[in-house]
Amino acid sequence: MRIYDIILKKRYGEELTDEEIDFFISAASKGEIEDYQITALLMAICFNGMTERETATLTMCMARSGDMVDLSSIDGYTVDKHSTGGVGDKTTLIVTPIVAALGGKVAKMSGRGLGHTGGTVDKLESIEGFKTTLSSDAFLSQVNSIGLSVIGQSGDLAPADKKLYALRNDTATVDSIPLIASSIMSKKLAAGSRGIVLDVKTGSGAFMKSVEESEALARAMVEIGKSAGRDTVAVITNMDIPLGNAVGNSLEVIEAVETLKGNGCEDLTAVCIELAANMLTLVTGKDKETCVSMAKGAIADGTALTKLKEMVAAQGGNPEWIENTYLFPKAEYSFEIKEDSDGYIKSMDAEKIGVASLLLGAGRNKKSDVLDFSAGIILKAKTGYKVEKNETIATLYTNDKTKISAAQQKFCEALTFSSEPVEKQQLIYNVIR
Amino acid sequence: MRIYDIILKKRYGEELTDEEIDFFISAASKGEIEDYQITALLMAICFNGMTERETATLTMCMARSGDMVDLSSIDGYTVDKHSTGGVGDKTTLIVTPIVAALGGKVAKMSGRGLGHTGGTVDKLESIEGFKTTLSSDAFLSQVNSIGLSVIGQSGDLAPADKKLYALRNDTATVDSIPLIASSIMSKKLAAGSRGIVLDVKTGSGAFMKSVEESEALARAMVEIGKSAGRDTVAVITNMDIPLGNAVGNSLEVIEAVETLKGNGCEDLTAVCIELAANMLTLVTGKDKETCVSMAKGAIADGTALTKLKEMVAAQGGNPEWIENTYLFPKAEYSFEIKEDSDGYIKSMDAEKIGVASLLLGAGRNKKSDVLDFSAGIILKAKTGYKVEKNETIATLYTNDKTKISAAQQKFCEALTFSSEPVEKQQLIYNVIR
Repeated sequence: MRIYDIILKKRYGEELTDEEIDFFISAASKGEIEDYQITALLMAICFNGMTERETATLTMCMARSGDMVDLSSIDGYTVDKHSTGGVGDKTTLIVTPIVAALGGKVAKMSGRGLGHTGGTVDKLESIEGFKTTLSSDAFLSQVNSIGLSVIGQSGDLAPADKKLYALRNDTATVDSIPLIASSIMSKKLAAGSRGIVLDVKTGSGAFMKSVEESEALARAMVEIGKSAGRDTVAVITNMDIPLGNAVGNSLEVIEAVETLKGNGCEDLTAVCIELAANMLTLVTGKDKETCVSMAKGAIADGTALTKLKEMVAAQGGNPEWIENTYLFPKAEYSFEIKEDSDGYIKSMDAEKIGVASLLLGAGRNKKSDVLDFSAGIILKAKTGYKVEKNETIATLYTNDKTKISAAQQKFCEALTFSSEPVEKQQLIYNVIR
Repeated sequence: MRIYDIILKKRYGEELTDEEIDFFISAASKGEIEDYQITALLMAICFNGMTERETATLTMCMARSGDMVDLSSIDGYTVDKHSTGGVGDKTTLIVTPIVAALGGKVAKMSGRGLGHTGGTVDKLESIEGFKTTLSSDAFLSQVNSIGLSVIGQSGDLAPADKKLYALRNDTATVDSIPLIASSIMSKKLAAGSRGIVLDVKTGSGAFMKSVEESEALARAMVEIGKSAGRDTVAVITNMDIPLGNAVGNSLEVIEAVETLKGNGCEDLTAVCIELAANMLTLVTGKDKETCVSMAKGAIADGTALTKLKEMVAAQGGNPEWIENTYLFPKAEYSFEIKEDSDGYIKSMDAEKIGVASLLLGAGRNKKSDVLDFSAGIILKAKTGYKVEKNETIATLYTNDKTKISAAQQKFCEALTFSSEPVEKQQLIYNVIR
């Protein structure tokens, strides 16, 4: 088999066999083909696409290129969650305790933030003492005993995907549905859970800017999951506006805790209930409506908050910080953004707000950047809100005063105003299973 | 400027600016961008093409990436010829002496054979003593004194094309009209002649299998030449059947000499007169018909043959071999291919016949292969010919007896027969200027 012939086939729109895809990923992993041949094939895939079968095979080959996490020692239904990334997206911190409190087994590996999106691992590390690196045994035994552990990616998960992704990132071949779908799902399959709920974000703060694109990606991922024998559901949610009111690491943990205490804002609570309920349908086999009630119940009766505290304690964190969030260090500087006239917020570009938060110190431009955990933004008003003259729209937080001016400018660029009332945006667009 | 943005633009079908193309070629030449970025862009070009302006700019940038041959010291109109490559194509050996005998100045750099096609440099080296490497001064002074020199590529001509070509060859991105056209023309522009006649082959032995594709390539190259201020003409000729009767290095030199002596076969003579006449229209400014008569005259009066002998002598070769071609060493073994029944030759796949010749020792599978100059094939019958039972269709020649069987098999695969008479194929399809 020659990579040349495989590239030629895909260039001319022919379907690749399983053997050809396996050869490609295996040879790419071993360095037996040149990077410049890999990128030529990736570009041809961007143009000619892949069938469901090709995409599923590509995903499985990438998943098997490294460690396949074995969760068979976990007693119960293992369920994972993945978000395609957004601004203010702290849903993992809320959803996984709810699901674990109701009997699901959540053995979750999360990522760090890069660019305008945050990462769950960074957020958790803003809790005093919290360890995001556990041994495999400790991870599995914690999930068995309390039903929940969230750690950073450990082991060598889907290294072929890592290699392809780095090349795609340098060659403008990132935005291809089969390539995105296989990249995400290869890691999810390798991570081992039986059920997978995907939160596919759509809008200005998401990678997919339109609902149609997001649905196509969601469908591709659900098909891959099913063909690999995993129960897979995708929820298409709004990321045209940041989710919730907090953007930034400890600010988001505090908002997550408030949401688990029942004091969450409407949009964040609704998305979390939707995601948790979909996970619970897989775990319990019950209908969606029942699962929605169960999820709401776990907030109302405090069992989800207790579960979060259990996880924090189990991973070396100080659970008192969860009980009393005033224990989180505050940023030294804050700056209030006010509008100088009346009007309705017509739109707020979530990506730009994410960048503003990054500029305050909450995010990374490159992997080696050090985070300011207490930096970020608290939104006081979101799209549709009627702002009065001199009312505070948002507060910026940072420990580095010099960063405020650029962040303020970027934040203000994100907003547009209207003198007319603005229609409320849809929050959940679709559920694909 | 970032190569990422250039790849993205071409991926989404946008036109690249001259500055972007210049950046690409310059950065590729200097190794400032990665090979895997180059191939991603090349694949995107295969899908989305290039405009005439983009192709012309790409060509000029590649031409200027290395030495630009300065022919200004040559007194008279310099004219070059290029063939896209075929089987039995010895036209350079015939056409350039005709044109030089009639006042054109031919300072030509030729290539070596690879795969199923032969190369003029190899053919010339089958003449005792002939040197295909000359100093720049010797090359220019020979063209000034006798009007003709054919040498191998010297200097550093279009190194950017060399780099891109090697990558294309490994990534199934060879067959793209803007990429082929710019590759050929970058070397022709760098080679410095004022007039350029392109012989674009079409059919089974050519890279372009259809007349339409060949015309598109020809048009692209003529546009590039014009936009670079060169007089450019392309002739589309038949390569569905090998050209002439000889395939193999010294066998082709002998056939070329016979053609210059007026004993050439019909197809080879006609293509050579057409190419020479088109070159002469550029050199003399006279009409095509007059130029055809002039070219025929240079064969009839022996001046073209004399010119070939002058060149051979000037480059250290033994001109007696041209006068008396029996001086060329004969291959030790010959094998006659006969047909066991009557019938008309319906088709002969020129590429397969080229491969049969290669298998006999006349060609190279890889650059380092050593040639058997006297190996090759003499065709006794071509497409349309009525073969009698047991009549010899072709004779195979080699100095390595073990090579005959595979060559014979390949040769026979090339032929199909019919009991009905076969229509004669067109020889010259079109002239584009």
